[in-house]
Amino acid sequence: MSDKKFKIGITHGDTNGIGYEVILKALEDNRLLELCTPVVYGSAKAAAFYRKTAQLQPVTFTQITDASNAKNGEYSIINVVDESLHIEPGVESPEAGKAAFAALERAVADLRAAKIDALVTAPINKHNIQSPEFTFPGHTEYLESSLADDECPRALMILCTDILRVALVTIHTPISGVSSKVTRESVLEKIRDFNLSLTKDFGCHRPRIAVLSLNPHNGEGGLMGSEESNAISPAIADAQAEKINAFGPYASDGFFGNGLFRKFDGVLAMYHDQGLAPFKTLAMDAGVNLTAGLPYVRTSPDHGTGYDIAGRGEADGESMRQAIYRAIDVLRCRRSHREATANPLKKQYFEKNKKDNVVLDLTKSDTD
Amino acid sequence: MSDKKFKIGITHGDTNGIGYEVILKALEDNRLLELCTPVVYGSAKAAAFYRKTAQLQPVTFTQITDASNAKNGEYSIINVVDESLHIEPGVESPEAGKAAFAALERAVADLRAAKIDALVTAPINKHNIQSPEFTFPGHTEYLESSLADDECPRALMILCTDILRVALVTIHTPISGVSSKVTRESVLEKIRDFNLSLTKDFGCHRPRIAVLSLNPHNGEGGLMGSEESNAISPAIADAQAEKINAFGPYASDGFFGNGLFRKFDGVLAMYHDQGLAPFKTLAMDAGVNLTAGLPYVRTSPDHGTGYDIAGRGEADGESMRQAIYRAIDVLRCRRSHREATANPLKKQYFEKNKKDNVVLDLTKSDTD
Repeated sequence: MSDKKFKIGITHGDTNGIGYEVILKALEDNRLLELCTPVVYGSAKAAAFYRKTAQLQPVTFTQITDASNAKNGEYSIINVVDESLHIEPGVESPEAGKAAFAALERAVADLRAAKIDALVTAPINKHNIQSPEFTFPGHTEYLESSLADDECPRALMILCTDILRVALVTIHTPISGVSSKVTRESVLEKIRDFNLSLTKDFGCHRPRIAVLSLNPHNGEGGLMGSEESNAISPAIADAQAEKINAFGPYASDGFFGNGLFRKFDGVLAMYHDQGLAPFKTLAMDAGVNLTAGLPYVRTSPDHGTGYDIAGRGEADGESMRQAIYRAIDVLRCRRSHREATANPLKKQYFEKNKKDNVVLDLTKSDTD
Repeated sequence: MSDKKFKIGITHGDTNGIGYEVILKALEDNRLLELCTPVVYGSAKAAAFYRKTAQLQPVTFTQITDASNAKNGEYSIINVVDESLHIEPGVESPEAGKAAFAALERAVADLRAAKIDALVTAPINKHNIQSPEFTFPGHTEYLESSLADDECPRALMILCTDILRVALVTIHTPISGVSSKVTRESVLEKIRDFNLSLTKDFGCHRPRIAVLSLNPHNGEGGLMGSEESNAISPAIADAQAEKINAFGPYASDGFFGNGLFRKFDGVLAMYHDQGLAPFKTLAMDAGVNLTAGLPYVRTSPDHGTGYDIAGRGEADGESMRQAIYRAIDVLRCRRSHREATANPLKKQYFEKNKKDNVVLDLTKSDTD
């Protein structure tokens, strides 16, 4: 493995939320600089404000104007908002939304220009960030629209800790609309995307994927819903025919209750709360949200802006710290996967002649 | 508190499941006899079979023919099936379903005749128990139909442990049908029932009830569903107007993730998996299902027939033991509540006369 340190861009999120507090807490321990070169997209003034207000450990930043100037062994910060930014911890303001978007826009541009290797985002407020440039329900959808290409066309939201990885078939869909979005095609597509991400981003070899049922008691043989037999089970069979290790469907209460989830590399949930409620119950403090499926790596902590505790120094930096670690891990896994699959041996064909023996013709290959 | 020991009827459930194993394990410790007088509705032969097959501790039963003959300090068993019952652990058979129903029917009759004080049920199989006499999706619905009266007209399913009590607005409803059943009326009705049960069955004084949202992110201000603003919030306001301490709605993932559930006496979930997945994640082994709202007390362990491990002695008896304890607790709470509210002081009225003083007229009461 090479010694190159990855540059990790970190956006400050909503400037009236707990973004700076979790970033400063995550950067508190200098040993992080041995693993990566962090570049914060934000405001040196805002960082200083929160350090003082929330009484946090001092973190020394080098102010730079371009991410390509970030040096190994230093915390760098790029000012994306001007000095006049007004900070009011815990208050939803249009100014804070604008500041959040400015950081995100700049970081995404740098990601595309390969000035940074991955993006870690502090939480935004889904309301005040809306503008003609940002009309999405969240980071995931914005990044999909900004970063997807032909080879990596779709984002997949994965929540992960060391013991559990949960992906979602539907994300921000009201419960009344979930059933119509759970189709054989949509479930199969997500199983494939999840399988690819577990292989490429987490280094799982032939990952084992558990698929959850939509209805109570796994539909109880049709007594409580038909999506299991009409959509989910057929999609699992399709995936198995493609040699993907998909299993299920499993009723979610028993699945999480009896610890069966520990036997799988990934769990595919049908809707938001089905996946996130047990996930957060098990792993609130250390949970990380990974946007998989795109050409670039993005992670974030699994909490929100935390307006109710902003500015008090009470926010827990663990999830942000884990998000940075996870971004590095995924970058390393992707690199290993790329190297391991870059120059495959050409396939050689065995030919069966009409006699009772088999001939390996080494002059032929699959490109012939 | 009186010294009378409650008689607890225990039905054997599906005779090919783990019913006998969890019952025998729960009765293993004789100190249970200091708390109650257990009466098993089942088959002495089946109990002996499982004790031997699953290599369990011996439990000495007195065979009786009528629950009124059960003696304090002894485990009693009433044979409700004949000697020819064929037992095949782990196999779904019509015979096992019939045996499960025979125990249930007899125990319910004894409950109505006041021969036992409460009912604890081992798990049944929802398919093989179906017959002209039993056409219900589960115990809860059968008991509602058999035991409800004018004063206690509706069953409420509550899952409980020492740290968490969860009730459900919809139980065995497919996800596609949940939205239409979550109405201002249905939510308010369940809040009222839950409030009454927490007061009467758990001894909570003015219980604090958390109501969960239906949609992701609590509907995100209408962006992700409207049931929160149209049904759930108005129902909470109605309940508050009735002086019930109901709060919310809360998005379920954060609510369970950040431990907020610990601040409430009860949590009202909108649908099965929303309540049960986090509940079982937190409390699988010791979870108890209470059927509240009826004139009689019924509890059960929160697991199923466990065909996959039946007959091997691997089943955990903890949930069954807790179900017995919970039945005793609820009986005691109901007795205390009855005694405490039996002879309330008559309300006295203060009268404001037109002058600047107030007169208490002790000759008037609310019955005047």
